[in-house]
Amino acid sequence: MYRRPDVLLEIDTSNNCKVHVDGRTLSFGHAAVGLVDVLHRPLTVSEAVRRVRSRTGGQLDTRDVMTDLVGLVHAGVLDTRPRLGFSPRPWPAGGYDSAYVHLRILNDRRRKGAFVAAVRETVRPGDVVLDLGSGSGILAVAAAQAGARKVYAVEPSGMIGLSEAVAEANGVGDRIEFIRDWSTRIELPEKASVLTTDLVGNEPLDMKIWETLTDARQRHLRDDARMVPASFRSTARFYRVPGSYLSAHRGAPADVATWNDWYGIDFSPLVDQDDRAWIGTYERPEVIRDWPTASDEVAVYECDLASDVKPFEVVTAPVDVEAGANAVVLSYRARLGPGTEFDADPRKGGADSHWYTAVWLAGRAAGPVGPRARVEYRYRGDGSSGLHVRRVGGEAQ
Amino acid sequence: MYRRPDVLLEIDTSNNCKVHVDGRTLSFGHAAVGLVDVLHRPLTVSEAVRRVRSRTGGQLDTRDVMTDLVGLVHAGVLDTRPRLGFSPRPWPAGGYDSAYVHLRILNDRRRKGAFVAAVRETVRPGDVVLDLGSGSGILAVAAAQAGARKVYAVEPSGMIGLSEAVAEANGVGDRIEFIRDWSTRIELPEKASVLTTDLVGNEPLDMKIWETLTDARQRHLRDDARMVPASFRSTARFYRVPGSYLSAHRGAPADVATWNDWYGIDFSPLVDQDDRAWIGTYERPEVIRDWPTASDEVAVYECDLASDVKPFEVVTAPVDVEAGANAVVLSYRARLGPGTEFDADPRKGGADSHWYTAVWLAGRAAGPVGPRARVEYRYRGDGSSGLHVRRVGGEAQ
Repeated sequence: MYRRPDVLLEIDTSNNCKVHVDGRTLSFGHAAVGLVDVLHRPLTVSEAVRRVRSRTGGQLDTRDVMTDLVGLVHAGVLDTRPRLGFSPRPWPAGGYDSAYVHLRILNDRRRKGAFVAAVRETVRPGDVVLDLGSGSGILAVAAAQAGARKVYAVEPSGMIGLSEAVAEANGVGDRIEFIRDWSTRIELPEKASVLTTDLVGNEPLDMKIWETLTDARQRHLRDDARMVPASFRSTARFYRVPGSYLSAHRGAPADVATWNDWYGIDFSPLVDQDDRAWIGTYERPEVIRDWPTASDEVAVYECDLASDVKPFEVVTAPVDVEAGANAVVLSYRARLGPGTEFDADPRKGGADSHWYTAVWLAGRAAGPVGPRARVEYRYRGDGSSGLHVRRVGGEAQ
Repeated sequence: MYRRPDVLLEIDTSNNCKVHVDGRTLSFGHAAVGLVDVLHRPLTVSEAVRRVRSRTGGQLDTRDVMTDLVGLVHAGVLDTRPRLGFSPRPWPAGGYDSAYVHLRILNDRRRKGAFVAAVRETVRPGDVVLDLGSGSGILAVAAAQAGARKVYAVEPSGMIGLSEAVAEANGVGDRIEFIRDWSTRIELPEKASVLTTDLVGNEPLDMKIWETLTDARQRHLRDDARMVPASFRSTARFYRVPGSYLSAHRGAPADVATWNDWYGIDFSPLVDQDDRAWIGTYERPEVIRDWPTASDEVAVYECDLASDVKPFEVVTAPVDVEAGANAVVLSYRARLGPGTEFDADPRKGGADSHWYTAVWLAGRAAGPVGPRARVEYRYRGDGSSGLHVRRVGGEAQ
């Protein structure tokens, strides 16, 4: 018996808890927290019950513990073996268990092909490879094909069973060990000489690659380990977004009049408030491609994944901005391998891209942006970021 | 000091925990669970520390408790007052704190106008109204404008400050009490005679309206309370989805050949597995509108929100299906008020709709659907659902 690694608990005052799993929320009694806790590694049922009871001084009735245990098994929180295969539930509720996301990833040849090429030029015969978030298994299989002696492929979702089958189908199943867990929770029997991962989100750090690799460097990797990707250079560029796009994403005085007409209600406070700050959204590259640019690209930070320097504190240089600029589009270039770079510029992406691009939109009350401005983009840690635009020599916008 | 109501905890073996908040994950020591627990209602700092220490028999050092407390305040998990205003973070990370979702909702006149009309025809002078998930405040303000003596507007997100300002701007701020919390956690000083809510998702029950209203009926509402909405009638209809759409969402043998060409890796297990079951996705109504239908509509369940009958166990009648059917589209009609219905049929929705429609797609290995089939759509509880299609007289597909 073991627990799935990605369980979220919502605990109430009486130590009962709700478990959030696969988009559902299920309620359990006061033994559930202990069961989820002790079964983070496989145990027999009797040993799990013994440990849960002993930690409360034996005050928990065995039947109460078993009731929660059976409920957690029924809910898929505890299981006797990893579940195989896709989730049939609608995306995005299925997360990385969902077929759809992996089809999108594999059909994004420009990006995924670059990662595969980088793995092939980085992995040497005899390497030990750690592949984080192995998904369909593509980078793990490519590493094994490139001659890796051993690949540890870590993936918390139910895709793990299918990626094992993919490895078998490609004749490298004996050299890849698939581990259904988070890399921050496991111990490996040896240190890896190469790390491969596509834990790269809409913004390069928003899937916590920096935090995850900081842990991996300390515990799973040799000091001289090679990394795919090796570094990011993150940039910002001003754009002129069409008014229709802006008004679909931000409140406008005309909206207040329309809503008043439709509903007989004055929503001006909502629009006034929304008008003050820059707000973020994600957009498809093929939409952004049609917008005019209003500045050169300006670097906002560089992040070397082989070092432990925090990329959080870097602030940009000033940039010349054309009149009418009302949006900042973030992009990045990833150094994937010695001879392979991936450029996430949305003007190079299209409908095949399975990623979105971060766009920050100005509020009307912020005033005009140019002719010179400073973009302050800050990675706050744990996947979260913030953006401010300042007029050079002027106040914050 | 109080805690925000929507905190998720991920607890490790040593009772340290990670707190998931606003899309970030933050780590805390062994006092954090206790603090999150006791501060579900406002307490002074000293009282919170006292309670956390006493529940462990005083074994926790006060400094350790204060360290976690300060960290939780810094993370926005604990606060001295509700935060006001929108989140500037990119959608969807901002959730219902994000401006974008409320603009989308207000710009969806067909749907939101029907809810407002139903509130206006349901609320009578002197009513006490409970509005769940008040968002921008639109239904609460409409209820006050219709003569409600008192409106309790419950909303867990940071929108609550703005909805208060909207109520003030409309001259009804003195009759609406905004409560930043979940309705399942609060006590009201009186029972309500009307419930209003737009807690209606892509599928009518997927935002847990049934569970939430079951609780509200028992604790917050008079026995004869009127409800907006009052009931749902959920339906399914077979469609013929274009091959290009299907292959973008499901693996196909041609994809296996393409991926092998691009990556030198055989992904046939992935496509084989994906081919067996029906899988779900959400799609925009304006996309579905262009697909040919392949059957009549068939009712899958009816759900009366004024009763406590579970809608979970209902299975459909058989339906005649035309050749080539490869998808099931779910829809519903909501009875909002005595004279107001909202029909979520995607063929009536367009780009103004802020909702998606649930679509289930057949796998090739499932075989042909018709000429007669049975749709088994099951609401599983807690927002989750599943779908099976069976040939009438034949085996499961």
